[in-house]
Amino acid sequence: MRERLAAADLDAMLVSNLVNVRYLTGFTGSNAALLVRADDDTPVLATDGRYRTQAAAQVPDAEIVIERACGPHLAGRAAADRVRRLGFESHVVTVDGHAALVKAAGEDVELVRAAGTVEALREVKDAGEVALLRLACEAADAALADLLERGGLRPGRTEKDVRRELESLMLDHGADGPSFETIVAAGPNSAIPHHRPTDAVLAAGDFVKIDFGALVSGYHSDMTRTFVLAPAAQWQRDIYELVATAQRAGREALVPGTPLRDVDAASRQVIADAGYADNFGHGLGHGVGLQIHEAPGIGAASAGTLLAGSAVTVEPGVYLPDRGGVRIEDTLVVGESGTPDLLTRFPKELAIL
Amino acid sequence: MRERLAAADLDAMLVSNLVNVRYLTGFTGSNAALLVRADDDTPVLATDGRYRTQAAAQVPDAEIVIERACGPHLAGRAAADRVRRLGFESHVVTVDGHAALVKAAGEDVELVRAAGTVEALREVKDAGEVALLRLACEAADAALADLLERGGLRPGRTEKDVRRELESLMLDHGADGPSFETIVAAGPNSAIPHHRPTDAVLAAGDFVKIDFGALVSGYHSDMTRTFVLAPAAQWQRDIYELVATAQRAGREALVPGTPLRDVDAASRQVIADAGYADNFGHGLGHGVGLQIHEAPGIGAASAGTLLAGSAVTVEPGVYLPDRGGVRIEDTLVVGESGTPDLLTRFPKELAIL
Repeated sequence: MRERLAAADLDAMLVSNLVNVRYLTGFTGSNAALLVRADDDTPVLATDGRYRTQAAAQVPDAEIVIERACGPHLAGRAAADRVRRLGFESHVVTVDGHAALVKAAGEDVELVRAAGTVEALREVKDAGEVALLRLACEAADAALADLLERGGLRPGRTEKDVRRELESLMLDHGADGPSFETIVAAGPNSAIPHHRPTDAVLAAGDFVKIDFGALVSGYHSDMTRTFVLAPAAQWQRDIYELVATAQRAGREALVPGTPLRDVDAASRQVIADAGYADNFGHGLGHGVGLQIHEAPGIGAASAGTLLAGSAVTVEPGVYLPDRGGVRIEDTLVVGESGTPDLLTRFPKELAIL
Repeated sequence: MRERLAAADLDAMLVSNLVNVRYLTGFTGSNAALLVRADDDTPVLATDGRYRTQAAAQVPDAEIVIERACGPHLAGRAAADRVRRLGFESHVVTVDGHAALVKAAGEDVELVRAAGTVEALREVKDAGEVALLRLACEAADAALADLLERGGLRPGRTEKDVRRELESLMLDHGADGPSFETIVAAGPNSAIPHHRPTDAVLAAGDFVKIDFGALVSGYHSDMTRTFVLAPAAQWQRDIYELVATAQRAGREALVPGTPLRDVDAASRQVIADAGYADNFGHGLGHGVGLQIHEAPGIGAASAGTLLAGSAVTVEPGVYLPDRGGVRIEDTLVVGESGTPDLLTRFPKELAIL
């Protein structure tokens, strides 16, 4: 972080986004800000009285200040420390919040927009982060395996029933909770990319699309599998095979240095060549970590290249309105060598239940 | 809303906060903004392509525009509509977001800070909102009754076990989910006001403090009850009785027109008179509705007065570090006449289980 400050000619950075504060310090409270100074390796963490004990335990290597108005306090502190150029998170700080910072910082401090500085660091995961992502993915894998073993996907159950059982099974396998709102979409609902579970009843011949993940120590897993409740029609087998092929192409394109839009294209082209370009209306994937969606985005319009060590999803889909849809999604870590590390290991062969 | 614009001499207001957009229109998508013009009773709702069908169904009385960059698009639209003074939510819009609005609005539009305009409207609930709050409170009441009937609070269970069962029971009673992270705090943990459930095991003689709520159609309930696992010690009976008395005093102070700080004081004084002022370190309550915390705040430093029709919590507590604590909390609607409508009806007499 301090290297980034030097590169941007900043004397210090005020970090307001709580996820970024957590990333840099490990602090998990709900009110905090962090001052990182280029010439001082002890950051200053401000939080309020509720978190006095927790902050001291979680962040032993920071100076801790108890103060409810965290951001303005640290802007004042920066002024006292003779900071001239103070970066702030202009993509997070509100207009009113900025006014308070300007007032607290005074005339000698220039507030400089520094959006995305910490997010860029977060894009490449370290070994500890990958270990937590792996645990999150394992909890999701194990829950889905349990669900199938119990016969949890069968005609007569509702989408909400399935969601509830799957989320409960994730807790059994050590998850702190679901990593986002579980999608269970049966029959024609599977054609809606981000369907919310309803009382719709699973029926023979349905696609059942399940997009879900586990949260473990702040890290999110993300996986989609699509099943067929027997019997499977030929059109279902065909689009499943197509999406599986496109998904494999996307995974194989996860080579460090590849332009992000080329990763998207590698998978999208398979679907377009089969004549379904219009039935795949979202990006191929996204980074995942302390947030379910983070850098990098992998889509047709994404700028930048893929970095080794980033954790991303690959999730192409084909959606046929009023009939059904298939999405297959994994979470992977981009390898130095070019072979990604597959974290979501639940099988991807078509399962007809 | 249009009356408020006229009062603030605004030609239009750009609403960016999704909860405020939902309040004004009923739209529940994850990307939207709303343009409300003082001289036109058809608002303009912008959202992206994912929500085309949903927006048309949920907001039949608005003009709907499909456009990913919702805020800047509507700022441009305001300029085209010859708006001169355009209010924006300066407590929500980020510095970068504001720069995009300024660019899109052009030179002829003045962007005027109008923080909290919609939140002020939200403070007073209409009959439909109260009906949903009542359903949310009933789901929580019924779940807690079931939990006790099943013997769910007993020595040997963990805080996490109790949380999980209670959340599951709320779903059984029609909740869409918990309205916030359920607090279950046993024994010494009950002295921590906002404890997160752990693997700590409930034991005979423990306080068990449960702070939880149900979410129903976007509306949040909020209730705390504290139990004792037999046997109850005299100190536990004493502080329970004290908090119950303070809570009653707080409820009785919910008279329209009362300064908010006087409501807080009515309850706090009871605790202070007993010598426990330092053991009640948070505000007395808060508004509740589409968010779990909304206007008005009821604390020692709150400005303003209580409005008839506002939905608020009353939740005093006494916390004895390393021993245990009691909080008793209800959700109520302030009545025109001065008698509040109690929505959380689970009994408040000390229950020794």
